[in-house]
Amino acid sequence: MSTLLVKTLRDDPADAEVPSHRLMVRAGYIRRAAPGVYSWLPLGYLVYRNVERVIREEMNAAGCQEVHFPALLPREPYEVTGRWTEYGDQLFRLKDRKGSDYLLGPTHEEMFTLMVKDLCSSYKDLPLSIYQIQTKYRDEARPRAGLLRCREFVMKDSYSFDIDDAGLERSYENHRNAYIRTFDRLGLEYVIVSAMSGAMGGSRSEEFLCPVPVGEDTFVRSPGGYAANVEAVRTPVPAAIPYEDAPAAHVENTPDTPTIDSLVTFANAKFPRRDSEWTAADTLKNVVLMVTNADGTREPLVIGLPGDREVDMKRLEAQLEPATVEVFGEADFAANPALVKGYIGPQALGAESVTGIRYLVDPRVVDGTRWLTGANQPGRHVFELTCGRDFTPDGTMEAADIRDGDPAPDGSGPLSLQRGVEIGHIFQLGRKYAEALGLSVLDENGKRVTVTMGSYGIGVSRAVAAIAESSHDGAGLCWPREIAPADIHLVATGKDDAVFAAAASLAADLVSAGMRVLFDDRRRISPGVKLNDAELIGVPTIVVVGRGLATGTVEVTDRASGARTDVELTGAVEHLSAVCGRPVAIL
Amino acid sequence: MSTLLVKTLRDDPADAEVPSHRLMVRAGYIRRAAPGVYSWLPLGYLVYRNVERVIREEMNAAGCQEVHFPALLPREPYEVTGRWTEYGDQLFRLKDRKGSDYLLGPTHEEMFTLMVKDLCSSYKDLPLSIYQIQTKYRDEARPRAGLLRCREFVMKDSYSFDIDDAGLERSYENHRNAYIRTFDRLGLEYVIVSAMSGAMGGSRSEEFLCPVPVGEDTFVRSPGGYAANVEAVRTPVPAAIPYEDAPAAHVENTPDTPTIDSLVTFANAKFPRRDSEWTAADTLKNVVLMVTNADGTREPLVIGLPGDREVDMKRLEAQLEPATVEVFGEADFAANPALVKGYIGPQALGAESVTGIRYLVDPRVVDGTRWLTGANQPGRHVFELTCGRDFTPDGTMEAADIRDGDPAPDGSGPLSLQRGVEIGHIFQLGRKYAEALGLSVLDENGKRVTVTMGSYGIGVSRAVAAIAESSHDGAGLCWPREIAPADIHLVATGKDDAVFAAAASLAADLVSAGMRVLFDDRRRISPGVKLNDAELIGVPTIVVVGRGLATGTVEVTDRASGARTDVELTGAVEHLSAVCGRPVAIL
Repeated sequence: MSTLLVKTLRDDPADAEVPSHRLMVRAGYIRRAAPGVYSWLPLGYLVYRNVERVIREEMNAAGCQEVHFPALLPREPYEVTGRWTEYGDQLFRLKDRKGSDYLLGPTHEEMFTLMVKDLCSSYKDLPLSIYQIQTKYRDEARPRAGLLRCREFVMKDSYSFDIDDAGLERSYENHRNAYIRTFDRLGLEYVIVSAMSGAMGGSRSEEFLCPVPVGEDTFVRSPGGYAANVEAVRTPVPAAIPYEDAPAAHVENTPDTPTIDSLVTFANAKFPRRDSEWTAADTLKNVVLMVTNADGTREPLVIGLPGDREVDMKRLEAQLEPATVEVFGEADFAANPALVKGYIGPQALGAESVTGIRYLVDPRVVDGTRWLTGANQPGRHVFELTCGRDFTPDGTMEAADIRDGDPAPDGSGPLSLQRGVEIGHIFQLGRKYAEALGLSVLDENGKRVTVTMGSYGIGVSRAVAAIAESSHDGAGLCWPREIAPADIHLVATGKDDAVFAAAASLAADLVSAGMRVLFDDRRRISPGVKLNDAELIGVPTIVVVGRGLATGTVEVTDRASGARTDVELTGAVEHLSAVCGRPVAIL
Repeated sequence: MSTLLVKTLRDDPADAEVPSHRLMVRAGYIRRAAPGVYSWLPLGYLVYRNVERVIREEMNAAGCQEVHFPALLPREPYEVTGRWTEYGDQLFRLKDRKGSDYLLGPTHEEMFTLMVKDLCSSYKDLPLSIYQIQTKYRDEARPRAGLLRCREFVMKDSYSFDIDDAGLERSYENHRNAYIRTFDRLGLEYVIVSAMSGAMGGSRSEEFLCPVPVGEDTFVRSPGGYAANVEAVRTPVPAAIPYEDAPAAHVENTPDTPTIDSLVTFANAKFPRRDSEWTAADTLKNVVLMVTNADGTREPLVIGLPGDREVDMKRLEAQLEPATVEVFGEADFAANPALVKGYIGPQALGAESVTGIRYLVDPRVVDGTRWLTGANQPGRHVFELTCGRDFTPDGTMEAADIRDGDPAPDGSGPLSLQRGVEIGHIFQLGRKYAEALGLSVLDENGKRVTVTMGSYGIGVSRAVAAIAESSHDGAGLCWPREIAPADIHLVATGKDDAVFAAAASLAADLVSAGMRVLFDDRRRISPGVKLNDAELIGVPTIVVVGRGLATGTVEVTDRASGARTDVELTGAVEHLSAVCGRPVAIL
C-alpha cells in the first residue's frame, strides 16, 4: 500500500450516481477520462484481468478458439450489411489521411463472417466457434453509471458457425452452458431471461441479467419459472368473441373528452352501463407515432391499445428495430388533418382507410372485442365499435406496457417486474450476415449451403461493475475471491517495528503459499484509516497484525460477513490457505 | 488441426514484401483487415499473447504497476501539450455525436501524467513506474511489412516518475534491465543503440533494435562497441585550424558548373593544385531546404556540408522534430532571388546576411577550414573561402549522411551500417510533460517540485513480427519455445487407425505432463502436406507418429536445426519434457 498507485477518497465523486461507480472511484479502481470513457488504475485492472481470465478459460474449455479483430474497421463490410447507416449516431466514424471511411467497431459480426468465409469452404470445417475479447465503441447518447454504460468498453464476443439449424442449436446450448459456468465462477447473481431476437426475427435469444436496482433492463419473472426481458414478453392472446348478436356501433357527442379519464367520466355520467361502470380498459386508445426507417424514410404509425395501458417505447422499438420511433408532433398533426387529436378512431386508420396510415393493435384487441373509441370528429366518440366487424387493423404489435400481476404467457402465474444489468446475451443469429456477405460451404453432397450463425456476448468491463453493484455494502466493495484484486488484505497497525516485521514476514509466507496479498505497510496512518481503506477496497479476507501479536494472534475478518476470528500466528498460513481455498504449497 | 481455424497457403500473398508478413499470412497467423490494420487468427493470437505475457511478467517483476487507459481520448490534454497539432496527419481524429473532438491515442504521455497528477502529491508517492499494454493508432503515410509498421498496433508503454534526476537514472536503469530480460526471454536478437532524444534534447535515450535486413532503422556499430541509431551519431568535431596565414579567398569564373562533379572537374582542369587533386570533399555544398515548424510557419534553411556528403533527411528531421523538412522548390527559389541555384555560397547566408536565411553547417566545417564554394553569381565560385574569417555560420547541424568506415565518435573504430527494427525504446523524457500539465509534488521540505519522467516502450505486435523476421527459414517460421503457439506439433501419418489412436494417446499424455500440443489429427491428408504445414507453422518440436510405430518409435525433429531423432514411444513423454524444458508432472 505504501507503493501502490492508489488514493482512496472519503467523498463520493460528484458525477457518480450508482454504487458501483461511486465505490470504484472512491476505492481507486477507475478514473473517468471522458464521458463514458474510463481509465483503469492498478487495483481495478487486476479485477478486470481476473474477469477476463475466467471468461477466457471458460470459452477455451467450451472449445471456442480465440481470435482478435481490429477496432479500427473499414467501411465496406458494414456498408454491405447496411449497418454503416443503420447504426446512426451510435457509430464513431472517422476518415484516414487519404479520406477513406473507417469506423470504430461497435460489434464485429461482419468481420467474423468474413474471416470464416476466407478460411472455411467445407462442412468439414464446421462446426466452429470463435471469440475475441476486445474493446468496442458506441457513441451512446447518455453514457451513465460508470462502467455500466460506456462509450469505450470491453466485450467478449463469440460467434458459432454451423451447417444447419440442429448444429446451431447445439452450439447455442454449448455457449449457454459456458455462460452459466462463467457467471457462476464470477460470483455473480444472474437470471436467464428470454429476449427479443430483434429485427432478425424468430430464433432463440436469451439474456443473462444481473438483478440490481440500477439496471437499465426491466425483466419479468413468474412463480412458475417464466423469465423474460419486457421487450420479449408476448401478451397472451384471448380467444375471439362471436359478434353476430353484438349491438351496433353508435356515435355520440362527447364534448371536451380528449383524454381517457375525461372520456370515462363522461361516459359513466351520460351513458351509464347496467352491468358495470365504464373503465379505461373499455376504451381503445389510438397513439400516433412517427417511425424513422433505417433508410431514413419516415411514416406515421398508429398503435391501438386498451386505454388503461401506455405504449412502452422500448418494447415497441425492440419490435421495429432498426427503425426508431418518436412522438407525433404538432407539425405532423397539422400535416395529417384526418387525424383529430384526442378523438382518433380506427375507422380512419389502416392501409385501406382514407388516411392509409398503418394501424397495429395490441394483441388483446381480437375479433369481437367492443370498444369505446374516437369517432374522428372533435368532441365525438363511438360506442360498441367491434373489431373484425367495424374495423380491421393491419396487424398486431407488442407495444403496451407490462405490469406487475400481468399473466405470464406460458400460464405460469402472475408476472413481477425487476430491474437488471445485461451481462450476457446469447442469440441464434441465423443466416442474415452469412447471406449478406456470401458465407457458404459445400455440404456432404457437394451442394453449396449458407452457414447459420449464433452470436454470444459478455460485457467484460460491465461485468466488473455488475459484480461491484451486486457485492458491496455501506463500507465499500466486497469482491468474490475469484476476481478480487487479492486474497488477503494484510494490515499492520500501530508504531511497533516488531509488528511491521511480523506482518511483512507473514505476507511473504502467504505469497509463498500461493496467496495474493495486498500488504498495508504504511507507517503513521491510523488503524482506523487503514481498516476503512481495507473495507472500501473490498479484498475478501482482512488480516490485522497489531496488538494481538503480544499474545501470538492475528485477527482475521471476512469482508462480506464481517465475521472476525483470532488466529494463532503460527497456524495463520494454514488457516488462511483453507479460507482462500488454496492448498498450502510444499516449501 | 482438424478443428483449428487455420488455412495454410502455398503461395505468397501478393501484398507481402517481407518474410515475417509473408509467412504469418501463409501459416494462418494473421489477415489484413485494412491497410496497416490486421486481424489475428488463433495461432497468431497465441503467439501474441505469449509475447504479451512475457512482457507483463517482466514489467511486474521490475516493480511496475499495470494500468489501462482508453484509446479514445479527449482533445484537451493533447491541446495543452501542443500535440493535437504537432502530430499532423499521423493522428486519427474524430468527433462524437455532440461534435466534441477526440483522437485515437498514438501514445499516452498526457494521460499517464494526468493520472499521476490526480493520485500523487508527495515525494513519498515516488518513485513510481506504471505501464499499460494497449492498442495504439497512428495514421502512417506508408503502412508496410505486415505487423512491422501498422496503423493499429499494440504497445507496452511505461512511464517512470521521480523527484530528481538521480531517481530518473535509477528508474531508467531498472527499465533497461527489465528490457534486457524481456528480449532475452523472447528469444529475440537485439542491439542496444544510442538514440536521439528528439526535440526534448539532451537526456539519455536508447533503442533496442532487432538487426534484420527489412528493418526501417539504420544503425551503426564500431569494433570497440559503439552502437547508435544513425540519427543519434555525433560527427567527431575536428580541431580548428589557424588561418592567419591562409591565402585570401578569390572568386573565379566557373561556367557551367552547377553540380559538385562538374565543379571538381572544372577546378582540376583550370585551377589545378600542386599537392593534390580537387575532390568533392574540398567543396562546400549548400543545400537549401524549407522547414515547416509545428505551428505551421515555414522558413528556409541552408545546410552547408562537404560536397562528398549528402543531406540525410531522416537525420536532419530527427534534430528538427517536430518541425518537418522539404526540398526547396522552384517557386521557393523564384521567391528568393538572392539564392542562385547551383552557385549558392555562405556569403549570402546566415542571420546577419542579405538574405537572413538561417545557415547551419556540418560539424566538420570548423574555423580555419578552407572551401571551394558558390559565389552567389551564376557561373562563379569562390576558392579558399575560410570558415571563421570569410563567413560565420549560425551554428552546426547533424545532417550529413553516415557511411561505412566513418569514425565512431568515441574513437572506438570505423563504423559499419546495419538495418534493424525498433522493438524497444527507453528514454529520459524529463520534465516536458510534467511542466506542460502541472505535475508537481511536495518534497521533504514541503517545497513544490516538478516531477521528472522516463518513457519506455515495447512494440508488442511488432515484436511478434520481429521474432518471425529473425527466426525463419525457407520452409517457414521457427518460433522460440517461450512464445511458440505450442511446444510440440504432433503429426499422425498414414491411414492406420492404430497410428491415430497411438498419436492421440501420446498427445493426451504430453498435455498431462504440462506440454502444449498442436495435434495434426487430419485424415486423408498426405504426410508431405502435413510436414510442410508443420514446418510452415513453426512449432519448435515436431513429432511424427507413423511407420516407426511398428518398431515402437516416433520421430522427433527440432524445427530450427532440422535434427531428427527416433525416440522410443514408451519414453517419449520424458524425452520431450526434457526437450521442452518442462518437468514431467507427477500423475
